[in-house]
Amino acid sequence: MALPEQRTFVLYDIVDDKTRTRISEACLDYGLVRIQYSAFAGNLNRNLRKELFLRLRTTLGREVGKLLVQPVCETDMSQVLLCENEAAPESDS
Amino acid sequence: MALPEQRTFVLYDIVDDKTRTRISEACLDYGLVRIQYSAFAGNLNRNLRKELFLRLRTTLGREVGKLLVQPVCETDMSQVLLCENEAAPESDS
Repeated sequence: MALPEQRTFVLYDIVDDKTRTRISEACLDYGLVRIQYSAFAGNLNRNLRKELFLRLRTTLGREVGKLLVQPVCETDMSQVLLCENEAAPESDS
Repeated sequence: MALPEQRTFVLYDIVDDKTRTRISEACLDYGLVRIQYSAFAGNLNRNLRKELFLRLRTTLGREVGKLLVQPVCETDMSQVLLCENEAAPESDS
């Protein structure tokens, strides 16, 4: 039986640019979507969540940085508070 | 009766430095702790969570940026995956 998926947030603070890029590429490989500059989110089951975390941790290695992988249940998701102000499209005038 | 508190994450992507500082000050005012460069966490009840979100949204105003306030229950908290590599202390040698 397939394991249930759960909304998962990945937050990271990585000093090195190349490592940060590899971290974001790993998140994309697991189907996550970038929600902020250093945050991704998407649905993963428990096994994939752990697998992704191990890949991220291996990618970070001994470099300075922080990784946080946090599952969030539907009840909590329903209480999220969001505000997004997009940049205005550039005008020709 | 006091409302139950819940672990709350605040994530933000803010372009303007001054506004970003004011956002982080608001998080500190509500007793949250900085866990990453643009992420705070702490325990808030539902009313305080909404109050903080309104303050953050007002602070952001019409500027470009994103705010996310996400409560996380204890069950989800117990499944968090964390990795923190601190910078080595500077050596005199």
